Amino acid sequence: MNEKKIAAEYSVNFIEDGMIVGLGTGSTVEFMVYKLAERIKAGLNITAISTSQATTKLATSLGIKISKLSEVEEIDLTIDGADEVDENLNGIKGGGGALLQEKIVASNSKKNIWIVDSTKLVKTLGKFSLPVEVVQFGSTHLCVKLENNGFRPAIRMKGSSRFITDNNNYIIDLKMEEVLDPVELDTKLKRFPGVVVTGLFYGVADTVIAGIGNKIKIFNKKKRVQNQ
Amino acid sequence: MNEKKIAAEYSVNFIEDGMIVGLGTGSTVEFMVYKLAERIKAGLNITAISTSQATTKLATSLGIKISKLSEVEEIDLTIDGADEVDENLNGIKGGGGALLQEKIVASNSKKNIWIVDSTKLVKTLGKFSLPVEVVQFGSTHLCVKLENNGFRPAIRMKGSSRFITDNNNYIIDLKMEEVLDPVELDTKLKRFPGVVVTGLFYGVADTVIAGIGNKIKIFNKKKRVQNQ
Repeated sequence: MNEKKIAAEYSVNFIEDGMIVGLGTGSTVEFMVYKLAERIKAGLNITAISTSQATTKLATSLGIKISKLSEVEEIDLTIDGADEVDENLNGIKGGGGALLQEKIVASNSKKNIWIVDSTKLVKTLGKFSLPVEVVQFGSTHLCVKLENNGFRPAIRMKGSSRFITDNNNYIIDLKMEEVLDPVELDTKLKRFPGVVVTGLFYGVADTVIAGIGNKIKIFNKKKRVQNQ
Repeated sequence: MNEKKIAAEYSVNFIEDGMIVGLGTGSTVEFMVYKLAERIKAGLNITAISTSQATTKLATSLGIKISKLSEVEEIDLTIDGADEVDENLNGIKGGGGALLQEKIVASNSKKNIWIVDSTKLVKTLGKFSLPVEVVQFGSTHLCVKLENNGFRPAIRMKGSSRFITDNNNYIIDLKMEEVLDPVELDTKLKRFPGVVVTGLFYGVADTVIAGIGNKIKIFNKKKRVQNQ
């Protein structure tokens, strides 16, 4: 059984008629979007907000109309994936490169659900390289500076060219070992001029739905201390 | 006597043959660029790096060749303006909207000189509205959030449209009274997803050259605790 698929399809049960729903990005989210499209065809009525060009493209191809974030006041529920989630429901995101819009959409959502397979559940964040979105201008120098500060940075490539985000930025992936304090690390990284956003999402997820084998496991956040 | 002009022209004395020089942005910097062009015509040889499309346009029109930041390892000296400078040589910049590239160029410069007229010298920062560069996506919601957090934000306009930076972002100007702790405020603002950079430049300027009446006054930084 596909763990991503069962987590993704289960999450659609949280979507209620009339809701404004944020759609994340990535391979797990794709399963959710397919299921959501089925429910919309069956009569569900929602307003959908997208976090990437890729999700917009998939959703519209399935008949889901995408509205602009600026057209809604607040999002009721956003369903997104994650590259790693720890026991406090802090996560690393951005493997797909959509971290900036994902973080903005999350910060405008009353509730955030992440859907993951069992390989994403970790005790401590950091095995997955930490994506940092940076402006193109000065990015080579920023890499050197990060290296001089003890990080192991690599500018993300797509084939032989640099990967470019939906916002026309680059991604620098930082090889970490362990992220013991995501808030401190996020603050430290954002002090480097040119850093737009990091893939550290702390206090964002309210609920994590994990596919584990052929079962679903649900983790709920105890207290909410969200990115502002 | 034009205070901007005398500060700007004096600053060119700090430029030595063979230097890699960062050129800031704004009306005071323009005087410096004119003077620099004269010296280049007279035989001075430098490599120039620009912080904005506006400065690139002016400089090239005067025969100054602009190189890319990515083509140089480090900048020897950057000369830029500021909207406010306090006694610790911390400043507010971004009135002209070039704050992101200005901050990146400054962070790659061995030495930073700011040139100002006397009206820019303040005891405490904050009378000048604080520019914050933000991505377009979610900017309306960000404004509301800033307001809910006690700030007085206004999206910068240019005529009847929103002002767009060289990086395709918006500027939100925050009406402050006093900025007592620039580091704390900068950190706080950057925690809002969508904020790319703030106009708080702390620990950046090594030297401030002020035109006061028909005199020059030079302020030097005591210790250097720079933005990384």
